[in-house]
Amino acid sequence: MSYKKDVFHLRSLLLALDEKEYESLIEDLHPADILDVIRQFKDDRVDILNRLPAWMIAYILDEADDKEKYELLSVLPRPRKKEIIGEMSSDELTDMVGSITPEEAKEIFTNMDSEDADELKELLTYNPETAGGIMAKEFLSVTENMTVEETLEYLRKEAPGAETTYYIYVLDENQRLKGVLSLRNLVISDLKARVSDIMHERVISVPVTMDQEEVGHLFEKYGFLTMPVVDDKDKMLGIITFDDVMNILREETTEDIYRLGGVQEGEKITGTVTESVKRRLPWLFINLLTAILASSTVSLFEGTIARVVTLATFMPIVAGMGGNTGTQTLTIIVRGLALGELTFENAKKVLLKEIGVGVSTGISIGVTVALLGFFWAGKPVFGLVIGLSMLLNMTAATLAGFLVPLILKKLHVDPALASAVFVTTVTDVLGFFFFLGLATVFISYLT
Amino acid sequence: MSYKKDVFHLRSLLLALDEKEYESLIEDLHPADILDVIRQFKDDRVDILNRLPAWMIAYILDEADDKEKYELLSVLPRPRKKEIIGEMSSDELTDMVGSITPEEAKEIFTNMDSEDADELKELLTYNPETAGGIMAKEFLSVTENMTVEETLEYLRKEAPGAETTYYIYVLDENQRLKGVLSLRNLVISDLKARVSDIMHERVISVPVTMDQEEVGHLFEKYGFLTMPVVDDKDKMLGIITFDDVMNILREETTEDIYRLGGVQEGEKITGTVTESVKRRLPWLFINLLTAILASSTVSLFEGTIARVVTLATFMPIVAGMGGNTGTQTLTIIVRGLALGELTFENAKKVLLKEIGVGVSTGISIGVTVALLGFFWAGKPVFGLVIGLSMLLNMTAATLAGFLVPLILKKLHVDPALASAVFVTTVTDVLGFFFFLGLATVFISYLT
Repeated sequence: MSYKKDVFHLRSLLLALDEKEYESLIEDLHPADILDVIRQFKDDRVDILNRLPAWMIAYILDEADDKEKYELLSVLPRPRKKEIIGEMSSDELTDMVGSITPEEAKEIFTNMDSEDADELKELLTYNPETAGGIMAKEFLSVTENMTVEETLEYLRKEAPGAETTYYIYVLDENQRLKGVLSLRNLVISDLKARVSDIMHERVISVPVTMDQEEVGHLFEKYGFLTMPVVDDKDKMLGIITFDDVMNILREETTEDIYRLGGVQEGEKITGTVTESVKRRLPWLFINLLTAILASSTVSLFEGTIARVVTLATFMPIVAGMGGNTGTQTLTIIVRGLALGELTFENAKKVLLKEIGVGVSTGISIGVTVALLGFFWAGKPVFGLVIGLSMLLNMTAATLAGFLVPLILKKLHVDPALASAVFVTTVTDVLGFFFFLGLATVFISYLT
Repeated sequence: MSYKKDVFHLRSLLLALDEKEYESLIEDLHPADILDVIRQFKDDRVDILNRLPAWMIAYILDEADDKEKYELLSVLPRPRKKEIIGEMSSDELTDMVGSITPEEAKEIFTNMDSEDADELKELLTYNPETAGGIMAKEFLSVTENMTVEETLEYLRKEAPGAETTYYIYVLDENQRLKGVLSLRNLVISDLKARVSDIMHERVISVPVTMDQEEVGHLFEKYGFLTMPVVDDKDKMLGIITFDDVMNILREETTEDIYRLGGVQEGEKITGTVTESVKRRLPWLFINLLTAILASSTVSLFEGTIARVVTLATFMPIVAGMGGNTGTQTLTIIVRGLALGELTFENAKKVLLKEIGVGVSTGISIGVTVALLGFFWAGKPVFGLVIGLSMLLNMTAATLAGFLVPLILKKLHVDPALASAVFVTTVTDVLGFFFFLGLATVFISYLT
């Protein structure tokens, strides 16, 4: 099935179907598909939204980006707004309210009943990039002494409002987490059995302050559908579902890839020239400063270059190989930190490995370039100078590629920001210094 | 809870608890946690595995890497092996058998009953990186005219063997997909209702040949727990579950990040020096060839540099800014292709935007560097030459950053492989050519 064709077809169905067919269509549609239509046909969005039931719009807002949620909501008349807000889940409401102005937020609160408003206020107190900031309040809970039958009855009543029904949490009178039941277990158990007999007691939970990326790794490790969020007294505060986590992991990885490539997070591939220039230019100016640093190093040796111009010819090899070696190590280290595979515990072992790699590849490339330099310049000492400086620079490059992200991590700065700037500055400056410095020392053998 | 402390504690529990406590511990443990212990304490792994029930070992193998699965299985005695293979799910068996030698695979087949062996043979015929290669055969299916009560009964019997029980698929007599039931719906429906009344008819399915990365994007878009896999006649062949997809997305992203950084996929951060050198050296030699190309460009202009040595000083700025501009565009394009946001349809718009960005940032940086060159060299024409070549090179850099990955995509090569090599070769060679070429033309104004 062609997805593109589908959008056009779906648009006409959403606008033109008669009442009865429309209702059965809506029952069977996925909100993400309707959102595609709304995004692609901006002129039709009011007509499409006006026809949709409030519960479906709430689902669509679940799928939308944070800012888009409010944008879509604000085109609707006030009574509808209120109804939709009532249907939205607390985590999505939090994301939306976190992305709008205080005045806009105030309007949202006036459209909520006081219980929902209190929940929202609580969720807004957490750092948006922690477990508390991404959790929802709509979870199902029972007590230990209930029976399977009572639990199923409770489920029939409460299921429509819950984020997920696949796990039901068992809490004590102080809301402390005692166990978890899966819907699967419930369905295959005897109706008279007690919750305490069939529940799973070793519940893996997430502290409310945990960083969202770390939460993502726990989901990847355990393959859970949902995870409960608890405070430091093990009181259950909310749940996180895997679909939200998938989005977070995608965003975090895009951010890492962008930062490694010197692009600011949030740049859209289909944005305008002005937006992109605004985001990229600051980075280019930072890079310009570091390039000027490298140029200054070269300028120290202009006298040497004037006497042996072939040195200028070999400068791109020095800079290029140092940069590549540094980037290789940097990539491994940044990704290792992001995936939690590199820790401060195994850091020393990894450092020794990287230095070993720098020396080994430095010798291989150094000997090759030394031979090349010898034949190109016709002087053995020229080969020695370029070969030795390759070895020194490539070893320094692995060191820089290792140390820069770890130092940033210690300073609580995203290691991916290490990227091009710091590491290639080190390799450029040191590379030119080794190469042109050695050449200056041995200048009498080179002319 | 400290995860590190947990591993040590868990190891002693697994080895030392008495029979009864051990059994209740195992019921409550997550296989991923046991795998952590087995990985960390290699000397204890036979003892730990020997004590574990076969079903738990099968779950642990589910969590293990492809090659690790067979490694763990092979330390066990033959009768246990057979029992564990019988408990493993078909998708994990496929991954394992796909990663071992034909002789080892033959031994696995001798330990299987003929029905499971046929399933496995079928799964092995699919490309491992497509929907067919990652799906499992263990799904639950019912027919339209069954009642909710009959379905629940079927569920009680079949649930233990299924990959997931949260969705039950409705098939016709030719195994064609007609609808889907969620366990949630089933639980809240009347026991006498027919499946056809409560099923969801518009099932979103995945063609068996779809690339696994595209499957990943569908899961991200729809937030599904599982998706059915169908052939071109809509016959249901298997299911894919979200936890497998999360792993695939992580692997695909790591691969992209590694390739952008010039690192071969599969390099382990804690591997040996020899392994890393073997993987990185070929890439460094490819880069050396392209650096030699840049050096050759410079060597054409040795005569000019000999007369104006300050040109050598500015070379790092030309190369650096071109490389950074190209990398920014490359990053946006490669990630856009990976996330499906850049298509051949919107490519023209994005190309025009990138050229616009190249020209705009080129003018900003060009004017700055022109002024710098003017003051540094004390000659206005020097400023003009370096400024103009920055503008030309940065525009060319955005073009290269855009075109190289798209051309690779057209040639069915992973666009992330575009990385440093091709783009920075273009920016180095063109940058030096523009800069030193213009300097040669205007040489009389520079000396």
